[in-house]
Amino acid sequence: MPDAEGHPAPAEMTLRTVLAALADPLRYEVVRALARDADGAARTCASFGFPVSKSTLSHHFRVLRESGLIRQVDRGNSRAATLRRDEIDARFPGLVQLVRDNPAVP
Amino acid sequence: MPDAEGHPAPAEMTLRTVLAALADPLRYEVVRALARDADGAARTCASFGFPVSKSTLSHHFRVLRESGLIRQVDRGNSRAATLRRDEIDARFPGLVQLVRDNPAVP
Repeated sequence: MPDAEGHPAPAEMTLRTVLAALADPLRYEVVRALARDADGAARTCASFGFPVSKSTLSHHFRVLRESGLIRQVDRGNSRAATLRRDEIDARFPGLVQLVRDNPAVP
Repeated sequence: MPDAEGHPAPAEMTLRTVLAALADPLRYEVVRALARDADGAARTCASFGFPVSKSTLSHHFRVLRESGLIRQVDRGNSRAATLRRDEIDARFPGLVQLVRDNPAVP
């Protein structure tokens, strides 16, 4: 079962759900940015600077969290997101590298 | 530019569009079935036996074709689909293998 914040365990992740999470342009950019950051880098939702409402942003981060791609941790007033790189690499080898290597628009 | 049937050249494919094509359960099943078939195997849309209308099926195969995942060729009364495996492998290494290895529902 996913934990209280909706993070699935690696065995609960499905490739199709992960791909569906990545299919949206904003979410793809989030994962690609995290994949290009140093391993374990944590970023707040706001730090990405997307021109969307807070509720839209929350929705997208929830989809990412529930797919298993990111982990969100509370930091008082904000939440920071990290890529679950090692777990994704173990579960779906090569996927993070593909996203890292491929800009949304070539 | 894509050809007259909407098949993009490999350089025109984007990972995000390919992932969006794979995000739908029916389309994921089509690609996974073709990935598990012998290389170059061609199948008609009807051969998959999905319980959806012909127009819905046509829509899904068009999305797959326009993403670059499959090639469709006319066969008189029907169209046969093949996975563009070598081109996808060259453009997005490891992706076909991931789909092949991961059932939609684990």
